[in-house]
This record gives sequence, structure tokens and C-alpha cells, in this order.
Amino acid sequence: MKVSPCPGFQLGAVSAGIKKSGETDLGLIYSEVPAAAAAVFTRNRVQAAPVVLDRQRIQGGQAQAVIVNSGNANCCTGPQGMRDARKMASVTAAELGIDESLVLVSSTGVIGQKLPVEKIEKALPSLKRCIRSDGVMDFARAIMTTDTVPKALSRRIATDAGVFTLTGIAKGAGMIRPDMATMLCYLMTDVRASSTELGRILKPACDRSFNRISIDGDTSTNDTVLIMANGRSGIDIGSPDALKRFRAALDELTRDLAKWLVRDGEGATKLVEILVRGAASDADAVRLAETIAHSSLVKTALFGEDANWGRVIAAVGRAGVPVDPDRVDIYFDAVRMVAGGIGCGPAAEALAAEVLKRDAYAISVDVHMGSGSAEMITCDFSVDYVKINADYRT
Amino acid sequence: MKVSPCPGFQLGAVSAGIKKSGETDLGLIYSEVPAAAAAVFTRNRVQAAPVVLDRQRIQGGQAQAVIVNSGNANCCTGPQGMRDARKMASVTAAELGIDESLVLVSSTGVIGQKLPVEKIEKALPSLKRCIRSDGVMDFARAIMTTDTVPKALSRRIATDAGVFTLTGIAKGAGMIRPDMATMLCYLMTDVRASSTELGRILKPACDRSFNRISIDGDTSTNDTVLIMANGRSGIDIGSPDALKRFRAALDELTRDLAKWLVRDGEGATKLVEILVRGAASDADAVRLAETIAHSSLVKTALFGEDANWGRVIAAVGRAGVPVDPDRVDIYFDAVRMVAGGIGCGPAAEALAAEVLKRDAYAISVDVHMGSGSAEMITCDFSVDYVKINADYRT
Repeated sequence: MKVSPCPGFQLGAVSAGIKKSGETDLGLIYSEVPAAAAAVFTRNRVQAAPVVLDRQRIQGGQAQAVIVNSGNANCCTGPQGMRDARKMASVTAAELGIDESLVLVSSTGVIGQKLPVEKIEKALPSLKRCIRSDGVMDFARAIMTTDTVPKALSRRIATDAGVFTLTGIAKGAGMIRPDMATMLCYLMTDVRASSTELGRILKPACDRSFNRISIDGDTSTNDTVLIMANGRSGIDIGSPDALKRFRAALDELTRDLAKWLVRDGEGATKLVEILVRGAASDADAVRLAETIAHSSLVKTALFGEDANWGRVIAAVGRAGVPVDPDRVDIYFDAVRMVAGGIGCGPAAEALAAEVLKRDAYAISVDVHMGSGSAEMITCDFSVDYVKINADYRT
Repeated sequence: MKVSPCPGFQLGAVSAGIKKSGETDLGLIYSEVPAAAAAVFTRNRVQAAPVVLDRQRIQGGQAQAVIVNSGNANCCTGPQGMRDARKMASVTAAELGIDESLVLVSSTGVIGQKLPVEKIEKALPSLKRCIRSDGVMDFARAIMTTDTVPKALSRRIATDAGVFTLTGIAKGAGMIRPDMATMLCYLMTDVRASSTELGRILKPACDRSFNRISIDGDTSTNDTVLIMANGRSGIDIGSPDALKRFRAALDELTRDLAKWLVRDGEGATKLVEILVRGAASDADAVRLAETIAHSSLVKTALFGEDANWGRVIAAVGRAGVPVDPDRVDIYFDAVRMVAGGIGCGPAAEALAAEVLKRDAYAISVDVHMGSGSAEMITCDFSVDYVKINADYRT
């Protein structure tokens, strides 16, 4: 699918020599005019230097450039790390001839090693030369760590007042346990919106997308979702029609990006939706869905294509929310495996075995306690996941 | 190490044909006299039929026999499962000529399949014939599922009033995520104690042993720790000296069994103690230790022999308790890797690389917030873990 460039934004990437592989590892997003900006950051108490810096800068409500490196997270690097993050921003500002306070910074990669900021400084002139409006995929590629494919999507949305564009780029393949695999997402749009409006729309969109592939609060030291709106289309989200369409487009785009992150999860071979219904509350449903979605035993069974519903119901039982085991129904796609807490027998097992061979399917759980519901997206837990994460730093 | 038989208890095992492999799968513990008994059961809301039954029976405070099968968990089997559990007890009682209310029952294995209780009934006469005082290892072998070795330990303890014996048998190798890998433990002693006294001593011993290799509340549908005291030694734990020695022996034995379960964890190649100090409270320390001990990313790094302390500090940051990242120290055995939240550099990394090659070592974290401390025992997360759990039912 071709990604539409978002008018008024230029992107590019170069190899600064941070990754040992020699692949591109430094990306730049440049907005031709200062853009309204809002962001959502990691809730981890250990926060990387670039996150600390961006948190301060985003208070201003505006951004004009984002400089991102992969290969080094600039985290647990102390006062030196803060100096390096600030330096990374200031040299970018100088190169672009813009105000330093309008430059945001992200880093992703190994924790605890000094950021080679001099390499970034040296690479900036060539990076500035290569930015262009259709550089989205170049940028997407430069921010990858263990991702196997660059991830970018765009939407062009018609409103009463004309057409606007929304383009998003994301990375983060450690999605089986996303807590420590930095998730970065940059969203660009040419609607006109204030920073406050953007923030109000971004937060719930993240809760329904990126936070549904993760345990609540289980974020990495560097996670960042940033949105910039340059107003170029002239369409103002003050209009109810534009607001409605923008919100819908953002919801859809972030959900699609989140799903893509899971599909490209480290070692993942299956994309599995966990649908919980009938919980006493939505919060209970989220707890249930998360407990199933994060269970190593469930995920290894999915990898083994084993319809081991015993592990699903055991996860339900330990989720810490009120359930009556005798009311639990479990489905693998349309196949009912458990009715009222009891297995449906060999015929159901045989049908489910076919479902489990699919690349993507849903596990639905109805606990019949109320009307709370929740969805999570997960993947299987494979031999390759262990291999990738055992060897990550070597 | 030779396991001492506990006077007055006879054990045995046979193959009843429940496991497809033909290995022994039915074990019996018989006490020559009714013994005082106490137990700790799973906190999972989904509870297997034998657990439901034993919970009722243990109220009586006495037990004389325990019949245990492996290969089938008799869980999520509905009213039929309860009938089967009761039948398993009643046929055992009839065979032994004892009161049915004195028979406890355990099952471990696959969830959701009907227990073939007729096979158990048929095997009972030969099981009764083979029980003997030194049948401990036979019993230990019959209750194994994915364990690679049978696990039993004993202590003979001298007191002012004479010598008593404590013998323990445990199984449960899914200890990387113990929540759904049934942990069973049977403790026998010849001290004289009431059921109430036993319960009061057993609970804290479990909290300091089996519950330190598990997330709080993350127990399987069948987990059971049972203790029986037949009074045969004539030593009464009413005496302060005997009580002190009994408590110490039980603490040590349960900790050693717990450690053994981890060492034999599915696919485990490393035994790692997580020591947290300086937390604001002991409860905070437990949260921190658990978050590190259960992190898939930490555990895969341990498997890869990679001193990836970034994953440890990221786990500290997301544990949900107050920490100041700038005060965190992390050690791998005696090697300081992180001081005040900052990595100690290549020399420390090189030393730590040697530590990580060991079969067993400790990761110590001091968060310098107070005087709370906790220990957890964990193992690495290997390629074999995934293989074992992907293929468990096939």
C-alpha cells in the first residue's frame, strides 16, 4: 500500500554509524512551519533522557522537527545522557536554522551505553540534504530495531471543507512483552488544531490501540507517541464534521499500526485477538483480556497450534477479578470449546485444531457476570522470540 | 542424597494407564494411623475437583491416605469431575479399609478431560500391595508431569526429647510461569501436632518458599501443599524447643524443594536468585523482585548469558512502586553493574559476562528508598521452554 506524504512535512534518513550493521539509524521529520504538537510518553518510572527532554518541550505545544536515532536508547546514562539529548536537539536546530525549543528527540536501542552524539552531529548535513516530502519509508526504516519491516500508513480524508491527510510511522517489534521494547510512533497531519485539542484526541486513541497490545502501565523507558498538525489543509477540527472524521481516522490508523506491530512481533507467527465479554465491568474485562494475552503458557500453545483451552480458563481464574468458573464460555473463532466451564469434547477440539492453523483468529471468552467487554491483540510465543531476545545485544 | 522414610508412613506407585507413556501415574501415601493434617491450596478461582473435595475434607483436621494421579488434572470437568474425585477417594478408602473422609485426592496433568476413574479403581489392589515405608521415590516419580527428576528430601532433627523426621515430596516443573503448572507437595512428619498448629506453621513456610517462586496469587487450578503429622516420635511441638526446630526444618525443607523445582524448571539452564534491598517496604520489595523474576526479556537475556542490566532496570521502573531511578544499584553476584542508575561501563560488563556463564548466581538490586527487602528464585527462559509448552498436549 502506497503511503501518502503529508503536505508540509519532509522526512529523511542516513546512516550515522550508530548501528554496527551500517544500516540507516538516524531519521528526521521536518515541518516547513512550526506545528501544533502533543504526545503520550511511557509510564515507566525509569525514563530515557530524550523522553525527559521531550516531556519538557512538548509543554510549549509546538514542534518543528523530530530527530530520532536507533541503535542506542540513551537511557540510564545520567547527566551525560541529558547533555547528549540536548546536544542532539541543538545541533539539529542549528543545521535546520530553527529554534532549539521546537526540536524533539527520540532514541531507541540498547539501554545504558553513552549516545555517540558526535556521530549524529557529523551526519546532520547529509541528513538535511536528503529530506523530502515522500521520505516516509526512509524514516520508517531508520528507526527500526528488531522490526522486520518498516511500518507506515496514511489516510486521505474528505470532509465538508476539503481533504486532509494523516500519516503515521511506528516501530517496536518486541510486542510479545512490549514493556521494554521501545514503541515509537510519529503522526503527521495537515489539519489545523491546537496542541490541547490534539492531546485530547491522541490519549483515547492510544488507549484503544497501543495500550491494547500492552499491559496497562507496562511501557518501556523510551515509548513515545507524537502527533504534529501543521494546519496546511486549512481544515480546522473546530468544525464538528472535521473533528469527527479526524478522530475516526486517528483511531483507525493507530489501531492498524498497533495490529501491525503485533503481527511483526519478535518471532510471532500468529495474530490473535482476545475478546472478553460479560465481565462485571470494562475494567474487569481488560484485566481478563490482559491476563490471557500475556500468559506465556497460552502463547506457547498458540505457537504449537494446540487448542489448549485449559490454559485460557486457568488465566481467567487468576486474573484477580470476580468470575464464576461454571459460567465461562470460550470460543476459538466460531468454535465453542468450553460451555459453562466444561470442555465441549473431541468434536470441538477437532474443529478448533483447524482454527489454530490459521495465521489470524480470535479467542472469545464470555464470563456471564455483566456487560463489561474488552479487546486485546496478542501473538504467539515462539522459539524465535527466545532466540531474538537471548542474542539481542551480541 | 538418600531420603529417610518417615516412620509410620507407607508409599507406593503403579502404572494405571492414565499417562500414554506407560510410566507410573498413580501414587499412594498411607499413614498407619490417622494423622493430623493441614493444607494450602491454589488461590486460582478455577479450582479442580480434587481441590474442591480436599478443601472440604481438610476441615476435619485429619487424614490417613492421599491418592494422587498424574496425566489428568480432573479440572473443568463439571459435576462429573466431582463425582470422579469422590469415587477416587471412596475406592481407595474401601481398598485400605479406612474411613472415606480420611482420604485426600490430587490430580495433575491436562485440564478438561474426563478422569478415567475406572483405571484408578482397577489399579488399586496392586497399588495397595506395593506400598512400603521406603517407597518415597516411587511415589515422587508417579506424580511427575514435565519434571525431569523425582524430587524428595528429608531431615532427621534432634530435639531435647528425641529425634523426629520430616520428609517432603514435590512436583511441578512449569516453574518459569508456575501459575498453571500444578505444584504438588506432600510433607510427612512423625511429630505430634494438632491440625491447627500445623496450619499455622505451614502457611508462612509456603509464603517463604513456594510463594517466592511465583507471582502472588498466580497459582494453578490444582496446586496443593499438604502436611500430615502422625505423632509416632512422641515429640510434641507444644514444647518450645521442638516447635522451634520443627519450624526451622520445615522452612528449610520447603525452601530447598522450591529451589529444586526452579532448577528443574521447564527448559531451565540457570538458577537465579533475585535479591531486592532498600525498598520502601517489604511489600514493595516483593513487587520489584517479582517483576524482575517474571520478565520474559530478563529471562531470555539470562538464557543468552547476556548481562543486559537495562532490562532489569526497566523492570524496576515498571513494577508500580516508588523508586528513584537515580538511586538504583544493580549487582550480578559481586559485580556492580549499575551505580546510581548509571551503567558501570565495559570493565563491569566483562566481569559480569563471566558471572552469567555460571549455572547459579544472584542479581541484587538496591533501590535506596528504605529498608524493605525480598528474595525470589527464578530461572532463565529458554528455547526448550517454548518447545516443551508448545507441544505439551501432543
